[in-house]
Amino acid sequence: MISLDGNGPLYQQLSRGLRRSIRQQDYRRGARLPGSRELARQLKVSRNAVLAAYDQLLAEGYLVTRLKSGTFVSDKLPDDMLLAEQPGNTGIQPPAMTAQLSRNGLRASKAAREGRGLACFKRDLRFDFEYGVTRPDRETVQELERLHSKVINDDAFDYGDPAGDTLLRQQLAGHLQRHRAVTVSPEQIIITSGSQQALDICARVFLDPGDQVVLEEPAYQGARQAFEAVGADIIPAVVDQYGLNSASLNATADTAKLVYVTPSHQFPTGVVMPVGRRLELINWAVQTSTYIIEDDYDSEFRYDCRPLEAIASLSQAGPVIYLGTLAKSLFPSLRIGYMALPPQLVEPFGDMKWLIDRGNPVIYQRVMARFIESGGYERHLRRMNRRYAVNRQLLVDGLRDHLGDHVEISGSNAGTHVVVWSKQNQPGFIEQLISDCRKQHVGIYPIEPYYLEKPDRCGWLMGFSGLEQSAVTQGVMRLAECYRLLSRMLGRH
Amino acid sequence: MISLDGNGPLYQQLSRGLRRSIRQQDYRRGARLPGSRELARQLKVSRNAVLAAYDQLLAEGYLVTRLKSGTFVSDKLPDDMLLAEQPGNTGIQPPAMTAQLSRNGLRASKAAREGRGLACFKRDLRFDFEYGVTRPDRETVQELERLHSKVINDDAFDYGDPAGDTLLRQQLAGHLQRHRAVTVSPEQIIITSGSQQALDICARVFLDPGDQVVLEEPAYQGARQAFEAVGADIIPAVVDQYGLNSASLNATADTAKLVYVTPSHQFPTGVVMPVGRRLELINWAVQTSTYIIEDDYDSEFRYDCRPLEAIASLSQAGPVIYLGTLAKSLFPSLRIGYMALPPQLVEPFGDMKWLIDRGNPVIYQRVMARFIESGGYERHLRRMNRRYAVNRQLLVDGLRDHLGDHVEISGSNAGTHVVVWSKQNQPGFIEQLISDCRKQHVGIYPIEPYYLEKPDRCGWLMGFSGLEQSAVTQGVMRLAECYRLLSRMLGRH
Repeated sequence: MISLDGNGPLYQQLSRGLRRSIRQQDYRRGARLPGSRELARQLKVSRNAVLAAYDQLLAEGYLVTRLKSGTFVSDKLPDDMLLAEQPGNTGIQPPAMTAQLSRNGLRASKAAREGRGLACFKRDLRFDFEYGVTRPDRETVQELERLHSKVINDDAFDYGDPAGDTLLRQQLAGHLQRHRAVTVSPEQIIITSGSQQALDICARVFLDPGDQVVLEEPAYQGARQAFEAVGADIIPAVVDQYGLNSASLNATADTAKLVYVTPSHQFPTGVVMPVGRRLELINWAVQTSTYIIEDDYDSEFRYDCRPLEAIASLSQAGPVIYLGTLAKSLFPSLRIGYMALPPQLVEPFGDMKWLIDRGNPVIYQRVMARFIESGGYERHLRRMNRRYAVNRQLLVDGLRDHLGDHVEISGSNAGTHVVVWSKQNQPGFIEQLISDCRKQHVGIYPIEPYYLEKPDRCGWLMGFSGLEQSAVTQGVMRLAECYRLLSRMLGRH
Repeated sequence: MISLDGNGPLYQQLSRGLRRSIRQQDYRRGARLPGSRELARQLKVSRNAVLAAYDQLLAEGYLVTRLKSGTFVSDKLPDDMLLAEQPGNTGIQPPAMTAQLSRNGLRASKAAREGRGLACFKRDLRFDFEYGVTRPDRETVQELERLHSKVINDDAFDYGDPAGDTLLRQQLAGHLQRHRAVTVSPEQIIITSGSQQALDICARVFLDPGDQVVLEEPAYQGARQAFEAVGADIIPAVVDQYGLNSASLNATADTAKLVYVTPSHQFPTGVVMPVGRRLELINWAVQTSTYIIEDDYDSEFRYDCRPLEAIASLSQAGPVIYLGTLAKSLFPSLRIGYMALPPQLVEPFGDMKWLIDRGNPVIYQRVMARFIESGGYERHLRRMNRRYAVNRQLLVDGLRDHLGDHVEISGSNAGTHVVVWSKQNQPGFIEQLISDCRKQHVGIYPIEPYYLEKPDRCGWLMGFSGLEQSAVTQGVMRLAECYRLLSRMLGRH
C-alpha cells in the first residue's frame, strides 16, 4: 500500500510513497496502478494530488501509460531499483569504489598535503605573529561598501573577459607604472585568483613532468608545491644576503624552464636583491632561455626608502613574468592576484585562464578598479604603511631590548614579516621555543620548513601586520621570557 | 651631468637622473660622487633631496659608501647595466624569447582556442537568444546589496577554508536535500570557481594523458575542453531521446575513468534522462569502476513537473560527482559553483582546490550563504521560474505559429534554452540562416559545434532567459521571416 510520510506538499508525499511501493515491489514491473479517482478515494486525498504524483513518476520513467488502458509500472525498470529498501537508505547500496587518482592527482595531493601540514600551525592565539595576515581598516571597509553598491547596480552580471575586467587591468597597469616602473599595456595583464593561481598557471603552461625549475633555497612553499604538482624537478639555488645568485648556478640549471624569485623581499629570509644581481639574473635567463617568475608579493610595504625597481622594469618585453597581488595589500580572502606578461605569453596564459575557470568573479574586480581609480587604494597603502612601520619598529626594538645579542634580525626593511635568527642552535631548540610560546598564547613560526635541505642556522618568522601595537609589545616580552627560560634550562643540562 | 626630468618629487627626479648618469657611464664604476652639499649646490636643490636620492641608489646597489671617504659608484655593476641608453628605453634590450609551452600548455591552448572560437559568436544584438544569460532582478540586487553590507562589516577577511565557506556548504547541503534529494554532509561539498573549475579539477585528479572519458555526443564543450586539455581520449556516446545510453557503450569504454552526463536537461539537446537509464548508468559505472560526473547545471528551472531525482540521489556514497552552480541560477559573473562528492574523493579534491587557488573569495560566499539561509534564493528561483516559463511559452508558441511544420522543438520542459531542429537540411542552410538573422539583429546559435562527428540533423539553440517578453516575440517573428525567405530562395534554385 502507498504510505504518506506527512512531509511537505501532498503530491510530493504521494510521489515518494508511490516510488517506495514500486521499489519494494508492492507494485511489480508491468503492474497496472489503480485509476486516479480510485486511489484518491482509497487514500482520502484530492484527485489532483494523485494526478500530479502520477505525472511526476511518468516523467521519471517509473510509470508508463498505455492508451485507453491506464497507468502501469514500467516493465523496463532495472533490478537494482527494485531491491528491498534498507531503512534510511532510499537508493542503491554504496559500491566500494576507491579514488583511482591519476599520477597528476597523486602528485597534487602529495604536494598539497605537505603544504597544508604547515598551515595547521595556525591557532587562535592572542599574540599571533602569523605571517601574511592583513585586514582593512574602517575607512577602507566603508569605501568598499560604497563602491560595491555602485557596481552591483551597474550591471556587472554577464561573463567578463576571462583575462580580467578591462577597467581593473587599466588601473593595475597604471599602478605598476607608478609604483614599480613596470611598463605594460592593460592587455598584458591577467587577473588571477590570488598569486597561487598565477603560479599554477605558470606551472601548467611551461612544465611537463621532469622539467626543471630553479627555486630559491629557502623558498615560498606555495611555489614549490605548484611546480611539484605538475611533476617538475626543483633545482634549489642558495639565497645569500643579496638573494638568489644566478652566477652560482651550475650547468644543470641551464636547461631549466623557469626560475622563481622574490627579489623585493625574499620569502622567507627577507633579503633584498640589489640591482646588479637583478641584471645578472636577466642575462642568465636570456642566455639559457629561462623565464623568470618575479613574485612581488609585498613590495607595497617598504620602510626605509622606495622599493627597488622590479626586474620586470629592467627588461621590458623580456623574459619576466611579474606576479602581484591585492590579497596581501588588502586582505587574503579577496583572492585577486595579477600577472604582467611579456607579449609572447599573453595568448597561452589567457587560454589557460579561460580553460580553467572562465575568469575571476566580476563584481569585486570592478570594486577594486574603482578603488584604485578613486585614489582609495593609494590612501589605504599609505595608512597601512604607517601602521606597519610602527608595528615593525615596536617588534624590532622589543627584540633588541629583550633578546639583544641572542638573536639577529633580518628582512625588516620591507614587507610584513621579519626573520629572527637564533644564536642557540641545539637540535630541537626552536621546536621547544615555539611550543613554549604557544602555551603563553604567542604564535611564532619556524623557518626550517621553507628549506629543501636542513639549514645550518635556525630561526623563526614573525609577521607584524595582523596585531595591535600593544599585542606586538606584549608578545615580544612573552617570547623573550620563554627564550630566556629555555636557554637557562638547556644551559643547566 | 645629472639632469632632472621635471616629473614627480624632486628626490625621485634626482634618483632617476643619477641612475641614468651611472648607466651612461658619466660616472664610471668605482668613481667617487660629489658630496651631498656640493651636488645640492650645483643643481640648486635641497641637500635633503640629494641625501634621499643617494640613499635610494645605495639601497638599489648602484652606489656604495666607504667609511669617511664618501659615496662611490659600485665597482660590481655588470656590463649590461652600463650600456649607453636608447631614448625611451630605460632597460635591457628585449630579448627574442619564444613562449616554449609544455605539452600540457600546448594542449590547453589548443582546447581553449576551439572553445573560444565558439564564444566569438557573441555580439551586441537586440534579439539575442544566447544561451546561459541570466540577470538578477531588482529585488535580488537589493537583497544582495543588503547582505553584502552585513558580511563586509563582519570580518570575512582572512583566508577561508579552501574547500569553501562553512555556512555556504551547510546551506548548499540543505538546498541539495530539498531540491535534488541528494543527501550529503557539508564536508562533502567543495565550492569552485564556477562549474568550469570543477571540471578542471575532475580532469586533473582523475586523468593522465591517454586516459579515456565517455562524453555525451553532442556534449557541453567546456567539459570536452577540460578533458582534452589534460590529454584524455574522448569516447563519444550517442544521445538519443532518453539521453546517454550506457547499454550502447562497447567494451572500449569499460576502461574509461570518467563518464560525463547532463541528465536533467542534456546539453545541448535538452532531453531528460529517465530514471531507468540513470540506474543503468550507475550499474555500468560500478561494474566498470568509472566515476560519473553529473552536471546538473540548470535543474533549478523546470516547467511541467518537479525535476527528476539527481543520479547522485540514487546512489549515495556511490560513484557520482555531482556538479551544481549558482552562476546559471543567479548570474554568470558570480563564478560560484560546487561539487558534492562521495566521501572517498573529499580529500584529493580538497587538496587540489587548495593547491590551485587556496579557495574562492570569501565575501560573496558568505553573501550567498545568507541569501540561501534567508529564503531569498528560494524566492529568487520562484520569480525566475515564472519569468522564464512565460518566455519559454512565448518562444515555443511563436515558433509553432510562425514556423509550424518546418521545425521540431526539443528540450523545452526544463532549463533556459530549447533546440530547434530544422526540416531544411541543405548544406550551409543553418549557417546562412544564422547570418541572415544576425542582419536582423537576431542571435541564434548552431548546434553542430557541440558534436564531435557531423550530425545527421541540423538545428540551432535558442536561450530564452536573457530577453524581455516583447523581444522574444519580435525575435521569433524576425527569425521566421528569415527562415521563410531563405527556404523560398533555396527552393527556386
